[in-house]
Amino acid sequence: MSHYPNFQFEIHKTSKNSKARLGRLVTPRGIVETPAFIFCATKAAIKGATPQQIDEANTQIILSNTYHLMLQPGGEIIERQGGLHRFMGWNKPMLTDSGGFQIFSLGHGSVASEIKGKRLTKRPKTLLKITEEGAQFKSYIDGRMHLLTPERSIQVQRQLGADLIVVLDECTPFHVDKIYTQRSMQLSHRWALRSLAEFQRTDNQRQALYGIIQGGVYDDLRKESSQFVNDHSFFGHAVGGSLGASKDQMHDIVALTMSLLNPERPVHLLGIGGVSDIFNGVRQGIDTFDCVHPTRLARHGGALVQPSFWHKNDGKGGEHINLRNAHFREDSKPIDETCPCATCKTFSRSYLHHLLKAQEILALQAITIHNIAFMNRLLRAIREAISLDQLDEEEKNWVFKEST
Amino acid sequence: MSHYPNFQFEIHKTSKNSKARLGRLVTPRGIVETPAFIFCATKAAIKGATPQQIDEANTQIILSNTYHLMLQPGGEIIERQGGLHRFMGWNKPMLTDSGGFQIFSLGHGSVASEIKGKRLTKRPKTLLKITEEGAQFKSYIDGRMHLLTPERSIQVQRQLGADLIVVLDECTPFHVDKIYTQRSMQLSHRWALRSLAEFQRTDNQRQALYGIIQGGVYDDLRKESSQFVNDHSFFGHAVGGSLGASKDQMHDIVALTMSLLNPERPVHLLGIGGVSDIFNGVRQGIDTFDCVHPTRLARHGGALVQPSFWHKNDGKGGEHINLRNAHFREDSKPIDETCPCATCKTFSRSYLHHLLKAQEILALQAITIHNIAFMNRLLRAIREAISLDQLDEEEKNWVFKEST
Repeated sequence: MSHYPNFQFEIHKTSKNSKARLGRLVTPRGIVETPAFIFCATKAAIKGATPQQIDEANTQIILSNTYHLMLQPGGEIIERQGGLHRFMGWNKPMLTDSGGFQIFSLGHGSVASEIKGKRLTKRPKTLLKITEEGAQFKSYIDGRMHLLTPERSIQVQRQLGADLIVVLDECTPFHVDKIYTQRSMQLSHRWALRSLAEFQRTDNQRQALYGIIQGGVYDDLRKESSQFVNDHSFFGHAVGGSLGASKDQMHDIVALTMSLLNPERPVHLLGIGGVSDIFNGVRQGIDTFDCVHPTRLARHGGALVQPSFWHKNDGKGGEHINLRNAHFREDSKPIDETCPCATCKTFSRSYLHHLLKAQEILALQAITIHNIAFMNRLLRAIREAISLDQLDEEEKNWVFKEST
Repeated sequence: MSHYPNFQFEIHKTSKNSKARLGRLVTPRGIVETPAFIFCATKAAIKGATPQQIDEANTQIILSNTYHLMLQPGGEIIERQGGLHRFMGWNKPMLTDSGGFQIFSLGHGSVASEIKGKRLTKRPKTLLKITEEGAQFKSYIDGRMHLLTPERSIQVQRQLGADLIVVLDECTPFHVDKIYTQRSMQLSHRWALRSLAEFQRTDNQRQALYGIIQGGVYDDLRKESSQFVNDHSFFGHAVGGSLGASKDQMHDIVALTMSLLNPERPVHLLGIGGVSDIFNGVRQGIDTFDCVHPTRLARHGGALVQPSFWHKNDGKGGEHINLRNAHFREDSKPIDETCPCATCKTFSRSYLHHLLKAQEILALQAITIHNIAFMNRLLRAIREAISLDQLDEEEKNWVFKEST
């Protein structure tokens, strides 16, 4: 019998030329067609977009950060307000992370917390101690001490009530050696078992638990960690830890990991959101992605576009246009004439350029909505391409290749 | 024959107990039911709200500031982009001011520019010289010199293309004597004639011109200025200049002025937006109001509510609740259960309090939408009350009176 009777992951098709697959993540709050992108509503809000606008941009699923919400307003308050869905007015599927990533890598609530700290070598000052029990840290808001244990992470995620939740892991720093990586992975495995036990103790069949694969850049450790998650009753798997120093290394690590994971469970790739990275991940069988990139880029004036919409002065190889650039001052076209989003239906590049120059917050709201709609269109195009076995052809519409 | 064949101001009813009147301002871009509130889209955007959201909150008319737009992006660019309506995606009636107020009173683009400088005694540093020809000032953006003449103000307002436009006047400082006020008024009258001549020279029958009544706190000057605007072919009148040091004095000045103005023309009261001030203005026959207050208040966490929705800890006599206050932390009610706006339908006070604490811009977007909807509901209630001769009774629903 399934440990997750109200959840299902159905695979409807696997690509002929790659491990890309078309699936459906069925949750009590609705279905996520995969591959899918998960947008970051870090502190229970996507910066600059209402739930209605997010929904109108065809969003299937969002995530919030346990770390931020346990500090402000606190899991208890959200629970008493009826849970995160009701609190923020989002009735579709949602994921929360364990809180670990911010504690181990960033430890504060500033803009820097939005960057996946793959190259981070130092621990944050707010992290006081890592022990077998958990991680002790200081709140960046009021300096108070907190201890995040695997059990506590599950308890807070229960209070939040997201549909998909994640075990606490130690987010291993980048420049550590194999010994450290191995010990860290083993600690994460012990924490994962405690997370799972706490999950089962408090199971209400309204949430499904993801295990995390660690092991850094080391093949044997990745194998061990993949075997570990396969052996335990997680609903899905998330690929975590250091993915290496280059895109090629990331590609190899993800490929190895995906070859080892139970193919019946959904796999999430943590913190990856570039267009070409998504194509690569999809080819290796990744089902869901999350990243602050699309919404964060929007707040800096960057609008995601297909290569055919790049401005000649924006250079090749990027995946967006920078609407702050003076060459958009009198450009009366929308960001993308073929985009059906509210921003492209209403505003010109010229107007958005003006809003950025005038420091009007409507600029970032409008570009955020476009970037969300863009990512949802991208993932829809990817799903259609998988169903037609045309992923390589489709990629040409979205990723610029020097050789083509 | 009318000088404004495509514009009309119809008065459908005048109150039995006051000069309050129910009217319709007919413009080529639609009808404004009066009394009405005009929302400030200072730099061609209402801060934090899309045109769609403004429309859904039942907004009839907005205004933009010529001063800000002539500096960024410039009138020429907006004209080449098809005019302000198309540029910002707002297809309903719009007003622009002359640009004078910012030059004479504020001279820069910061938050302070949002405050009506009634008590301002000094000229801004960016104002270099006032001559018969016009006002010379320095751009706060790039330091470049500009000369705003009555003709130039009309020309820029032609480029912007708002439906209702306004003559350039000298915005008289507050603490000047009668001699200065008289000379300033006379200068404003000469500028008004030049504005009117330029308007007529360039008339395209798509815009209607408002004259401004000056005269400060002096009855004889107010009379002279009212006579002046009556005698010239303005479509409407705006009550400008210093309205005194107290609400009582403002009340008296507005009452006197209104008794003198041609009753067939619409009258706008510049920069007034408090709820009780609006009731007072309406009773004296004011047809339209504008003020940054509702949208500015929202950005500081203040939500406009009727007295029955005040929180006991917010004190009496205010017209809003401050959602930053800790007593809203677990308040699961919307701002106002009876309000049909998107914010009240979706978000609790507890969530909005969290967003303010977490410095999420969604907070100010959401409260802005509520405050716009509130003002539109208020003005609709006022119009219904006028039609039923129940303005005094209706006021009790919106304004707290110690004696009731």
